[in-house]
Amino acid sequence: MAAIRKSMVAEEAGAAGEADDAVGLATRHLVQPWPYAGSAGAEARTLIGEGDGIYITDAMGKRLIDGPAGMWCTNVGHRREELARVMYDQSMQLSYNTPWYTMNAPSAQLAQRIAGHAPGDLSHVFFTTGGSTAVETALRFMQFYNNVKGRPDKKLILSRGGAYHGSTYLSASLNGRPRSHDWMDGLDAIAVKLTAPDPFRRPQGMSIEAFGDFLVEEFRDTVARIGAERIGAFIGEPVQASGGVIVPPDNYLKRIREICRVNDILFIADEVVTAFGRLGSIFASGEVFGLDPDMITFAKGVTSGYFPLGGVVISERLLEGLRRSNHPDALFGHGLTYTSHPVGCAVALKNLDLLEGGVLAHAREVAPYFQARLKSLEELPLVGEVRGMGLMACVECVADRESKNPLELDTNVGERIDRHCQELGLLVRPLINMCVMSPPLVITRGQIDTLVDILREGISRTMEELRKEGVWQG
Amino acid sequence: MAAIRKSMVAEEAGAAGEADDAVGLATRHLVQPWPYAGSAGAEARTLIGEGDGIYITDAMGKRLIDGPAGMWCTNVGHRREELARVMYDQSMQLSYNTPWYTMNAPSAQLAQRIAGHAPGDLSHVFFTTGGSTAVETALRFMQFYNNVKGRPDKKLILSRGGAYHGSTYLSASLNGRPRSHDWMDGLDAIAVKLTAPDPFRRPQGMSIEAFGDFLVEEFRDTVARIGAERIGAFIGEPVQASGGVIVPPDNYLKRIREICRVNDILFIADEVVTAFGRLGSIFASGEVFGLDPDMITFAKGVTSGYFPLGGVVISERLLEGLRRSNHPDALFGHGLTYTSHPVGCAVALKNLDLLEGGVLAHAREVAPYFQARLKSLEELPLVGEVRGMGLMACVECVADRESKNPLELDTNVGERIDRHCQELGLLVRPLINMCVMSPPLVITRGQIDTLVDILREGISRTMEELRKEGVWQG
Ligand SMILES: Cc1ncc(COP(=O)(O)O)c(C=O)c1O
Ligand SMILES: Cc1ncc(COP(=O)(O)O)c(C=O)c1O
Repeated sequence: MAAIRKSMVAEEAGAAGEADDAVGLATRHLVQPWPYAGSAGAEARTLIGEGDGIYITDAMGKRLIDGPAGMWCTNVGHRREELARVMYDQSMQLSYNTPWYTMNAPSAQLAQRIAGHAPGDLSHVFFTTGGSTAVETALRFMQFYNNVKGRPDKKLILSRGGAYHGSTYLSASLNGRPRSHDWMDGLDAIAVKLTAPDPFRRPQGMSIEAFGDFLVEEFRDTVARIGAERIGAFIGEPVQASGGVIVPPDNYLKRIREICRVNDILFIADEVVTAFGRLGSIFASGEVFGLDPDMITFAKGVTSGYFPLGGVVISERLLEGLRRSNHPDALFGHGLTYTSHPVGCAVALKNLDLLEGGVLAHAREVAPYFQARLKSLEELPLVGEVRGMGLMACVECVADRESKNPLELDTNVGERIDRHCQELGLLVRPLINMCVMSPPLVITRGQIDTLVDILREGISRTMEELRKEGVWQG
Repeated sequence: MAAIRKSMVAEEAGAAGEADDAVGLATRHLVQPWPYAGSAGAEARTLIGEGDGIYITDAMGKRLIDGPAGMWCTNVGHRREELARVMYDQSMQLSYNTPWYTMNAPSAQLAQRIAGHAPGDLSHVFFTTGGSTAVETALRFMQFYNNVKGRPDKKLILSRGGAYHGSTYLSASLNGRPRSHDWMDGLDAIAVKLTAPDPFRRPQGMSIEAFGDFLVEEFRDTVARIGAERIGAFIGEPVQASGGVIVPPDNYLKRIREICRVNDILFIADEVVTAFGRLGSIFASGEVFGLDPDMITFAKGVTSGYFPLGGVVISERLLEGLRRSNHPDALFGHGLTYTSHPVGCAVALKNLDLLEGGVLAHAREVAPYFQARLKSLEELPLVGEVRGMGLMACVECVADRESKNPLELDTNVGERIDRHCQELGLLVRPLINMCVMSPPLVITRGQIDTLVDILREGISRTMEELRKEGVWQG
């Protein structure tokens, strides 16, 4: 995930590096995620002390709109007393039980509630601690399923450029890896990468419709070339999130799903971001895209980030196939200590109450306004495109709107916009030359206005800066 | 993890399968971890409704001693109001922040506290959501480190029979896999398996000392055969937990550590079970075994199971090596959404207060009594060995004490003992022919007496049963 973000190496931090405050401690004892080698273990990031509704407060006491909702997590907003209360209550009731040979009621109740929202014949849930472990579960299930079915060679996984599926060895191997020089190992033999379904970056002169056809043809050709008997699954985010909020061409997903069905390739929708309200419904696969996947992975919004929980919803047909197989004693040797955690499941149940009790409806209601207001930023010459769906959007900056050429990497345009916006009261999620906006779903129209106004001003200041430095002449 | 446990397939569960109670819901909507194909998605397990101190209460209102502490998790005991309170308070303060470009104070404070307890030059912490993700982090860090160091072929991982390191594709590939027929895929090319350091199962006629020498020789030979330039790391549990509480021969670990040092092979101690009090100290590597690993993985006890948190403590030398490398821009592209979760870190800080404030001292004080009382079960002819350390122990059953031959798998001896003990008020962790005992660390001498008395009676009843059935004649 090629995020470029504010970092403060110990030496730059000066006195802070020696101090016993959080920043000093971090630069001496914490390894931040996704660090550069040059600052690994010696880096602090913007210190957040408090959250409330759509706001977070930094160490200076400055209140910021949480533009990315903690990276697509805090869907019902910060400081929801109902969620804090349920953590207390469930911890006092039963704080933990091992899922290996015991179970708890909240996990069974949550599985039913989630299955009730899932499309098609998705009837069962396997719980994990987040998105990567959810993806691991879906893929290890596919491997097991095909072993039991007597087709151990049907295991390859199709994924796409621009994809983000996690940060374990297997899940990370499916990522799009936009970085030209990649220092991480991956399982190259297990995954086949297809073109990112990014209409903005489609070949020049090609219509979006033709681009959709191209993607479908590529998929069909790939299956034909490799052989369906060697391909176990396709995994894809309905809207690619970390790739830059990529909304695919119309009907593309449905057409891919049909090719998968015909070839007995499991279709896995990675809804870690799109589920639990981001696109206005609990799952987007069915309600937004008309899909009936074989499995759906979820995380983040299921607890609004209050508790690490994720999981996979699995098709009744697949489980039935296992139960009726010739190998009833085959062991699906998979599960985490924190699978079906009672507190996490209780939090998710209450979070679902909040979503169903008004937050979903609100998100659907304000989404068109959110998208329209952001779209107005296309007036700014640095902005190549504003795109999005529901309450997720991306402002992509370009050096030149005709050619769509990106700015040089070291322009750090996303980081600059973020810096200006933070001054003005908005936290942005900068992704190289993109700014992702996906606020808590409870954001009001008035707050959307503020968010867009700040972003406009932040981009304007960045344009001025770049012009002054002679880096860009828009 | 070859656990055989009580399961209830929908049909057996009868009416429950249709009911809307937790058991009925589970059989229709939940996939339990480690299911058999024949009951996948149609299985309930012993329903636990409540926890209090060392006790949990099942659905019938029966109070049971939590013998395995929820599988080595609930170290400070159930229903600790301090931990529930801190979850509430921190959720109201800041329930989540993204670690990608922000940070929070509890994670920096916790990193310092943990580093303060770690041996050698282990100075920094990377947080995850559990044990598997901690192991993934340690291994992906090793891969990255060797890429930056310009030795991309130094990546093989040495692990051992009897090992359990997790349930993601990479971490599971390191497991000992005792099952003869394994239905799960693994990365066979990445791991080299060594002999389990199990003195009880050492070759007949060999002294324990000679067995230790054999293990060390095997390690040395393996390094020589494969070449140190191809081996990135050794990973091992100081005491193998899921493998059956295997306490290795004296000095074996130290000797392995020295071979690793000489050959620039990273020594990773997997302390997911042994850390945070199970062996009487925060980390066992230094205080109990005199080791200074390059990395230590932890999870479970760090929050006493109240919140999914895990992590890796990393050597200052390794991080320094990265910072001073010729590739400061190399990106360690690794991190989870829930890395450095503010609520999890706050819970762990309070849990550390409790451990340091008395629980550790208590655990050290009662451990010898716990081990001595359990050891008395060796009087029973079904018991081949009782072994353990600190507050973890294992009662291994055998068909014959001379030959140490195990009972037939379908005798289900562990499951039988568990059934009898549950009737008598004790939950056992049955592992085929082994019963693992690792209660909450707050257990008193009187409660230890009760635990051992029940276990004795449960084993006696099992012996009678087996004799009656003509399956075993001890
Ligand atoms: C679509 C998608 N899948 C999987 C993941 C991985 O989730 P986690 O970081 O919780 O492991 C992410 C994280 O951003 C994601 O966006
Ligand atoms: C030593 C050890 N390492 C790693 C793990 C995996 O931890 P988790 O189940 O939290 O992923 C376990 C779990 O039992 C363990 O015992």
